[in-house]
Amino acid sequence: MAREEFTVGIIGLGLMGGSAALKLKEERFAGKILGYDIDQDHAREALALKIVDEVLVLDELCYQSDLLILAIPVNKALLVLPEVMAKINPYSIVIDLGSTKQRICKLANTLQNRGQFVACHPIAGTENTGPKAAFASLFQDKVNIICDKENSTTGALALITRMSETLGMRVKYMDSASHDRHIAYVSHLSHITSFMLGKTVLEVENDEANIFDMAGSGFASTVRLAKSSPEMWAPIFKENSDNILIVLDRYINNLNKMRDLIEQGDEEDLTQTMKDINIIRSVLDGEQVTR
Amino acid sequence: MAREEFTVGIIGLGLMGGSAALKLKEERFAGKILGYDIDQDHAREALALKIVDEVLVLDELCYQSDLLILAIPVNKALLVLPEVMAKINPYSIVIDLGSTKQRICKLANTLQNRGQFVACHPIAGTENTGPKAAFASLFQDKVNIICDKENSTTGALALITRMSETLGMRVKYMDSASHDRHIAYVSHLSHITSFMLGKTVLEVENDEANIFDMAGSGFASTVRLAKSSPEMWAPIFKENSDNILIVLDRYINNLNKMRDLIEQGDEEDLTQTMKDINIIRSVLDGEQVTR
Repeated sequence: MAREEFTVGIIGLGLMGGSAALKLKEERFAGKILGYDIDQDHAREALALKIVDEVLVLDELCYQSDLLILAIPVNKALLVLPEVMAKINPYSIVIDLGSTKQRICKLANTLQNRGQFVACHPIAGTENTGPKAAFASLFQDKVNIICDKENSTTGALALITRMSETLGMRVKYMDSASHDRHIAYVSHLSHITSFMLGKTVLEVENDEANIFDMAGSGFASTVRLAKSSPEMWAPIFKENSDNILIVLDRYINNLNKMRDLIEQGDEEDLTQTMKDINIIRSVLDGEQVTR
Repeated sequence: MAREEFTVGIIGLGLMGGSAALKLKEERFAGKILGYDIDQDHAREALALKIVDEVLVLDELCYQSDLLILAIPVNKALLVLPEVMAKINPYSIVIDLGSTKQRICKLANTLQNRGQFVACHPIAGTENTGPKAAFASLFQDKVNIICDKENSTTGALALITRMSETLGMRVKYMDSASHDRHIAYVSHLSHITSFMLGKTVLEVENDEANIFDMAGSGFASTVRLAKSSPEMWAPIFKENSDNILIVLDRYINNLNKMRDLIEQGDEEDLTQTMKDINIIRSVLDGEQVTR
């Protein structure tokens, strides 16, 4: 496999970038991992943890890498992408891993070498951040959504399909507008409900010991996403606000209806409402559902 | 330990009752496990799975058991408790495992042999139901909250402390009114937010394949509780509605504020809001938190 040992440049050495680096090196997809991070501590940590072989300035990284992975917050990716695309050599490929895709795809369309860019969203992550949070199996058995593939070259898509498979992922294609709508429904809303659950419980519960003792009752898993990085999520909420507000308003409306059912104490209505929702179990198991 | 091989009667052979049965038998706290369930299929399943040694009618179960465990929905426990307490012999102990404690404690106070009853809430569970969902380590390292202990005899408390330790739990004491308030904040609210998240996503997302493919993005863990049993939860929501409405209204209010922040697109405010919530990580780790 020596021919496939690409030089991979990672911009942003956190959970996502670091995990990709570890796996691509382990599987010898990457012969060498080059790294860049505006946070010097993260760059040093990534070197010490052997996530990257070298830390370079951005220009050097662009010149030397066959594949460049932008693993930074979505607002930062919008700033960095044009700079990177202007510096890469004609055979290099650039991808991003951001959770919103419409704006970066629109931006990419204005660049001369658009075909060398592939917009990716690997549906993987944890609530932890920084190089220390990285682990090689993060992407195993997950889905990599590639957006607006018709704007990338066949060669670029072939490389990213191989990379995705090397990371253990299956590839799914979507247009970037659909992606942003569906991901608002399934992912972004969950993060908001979880953050607000954490906020509410912290406000009403003065005794942290009670939260700790009672967290096993379902709170811990429901509030897990409230540990997520604000620096990563604020730009996502801002960028995808149109889609988010539609589903968030509907969520608030559903909560108000549930609130009234609880106030009325109508056990039959409450039971039926929850029974209808129970099919989420089959949906999550990937089963065919009639509804 | 032969002297400790009590005869334990389990009323309700689902996740909670079944798991207690398995562990108490395994640890020889119970020499014999007797079972009762109004659902004949569950009773047969529990026998087949060797969760119980015998299935009896309720009267027989009450006469023969040293310890009786009510592991049924909270509204059913209110109906069954007086009947059971009237039938037990003078040395037997009765506990319940329900998620609300104020009403059952008030009811117990009207019974002549109140001292033989211990109101328990083991903070443990999964989203699965029925005898098949039971497993011996369900309670390991969890907390058993005993409510209004001053109304139980010293002997009854001693037995239930031993039982709790046998199940792997540490015991915490609380008055029943405080319990219901705190558990509304930490547990009941989580179930409501999770059910409504499931409902909302099922409403807006017509293509289940998208839910399945994108669930790895945090949705799966946030919506997990929406798989829970409606028959168990509707009575809890009804019974604890006063406490639940206070915290649910606050949650809806926080969501509305977050909604406005997202609409305004104020990244700084969004970031600060989420940063303040991030301390939930330390709270869940049991660390001292200054706030």
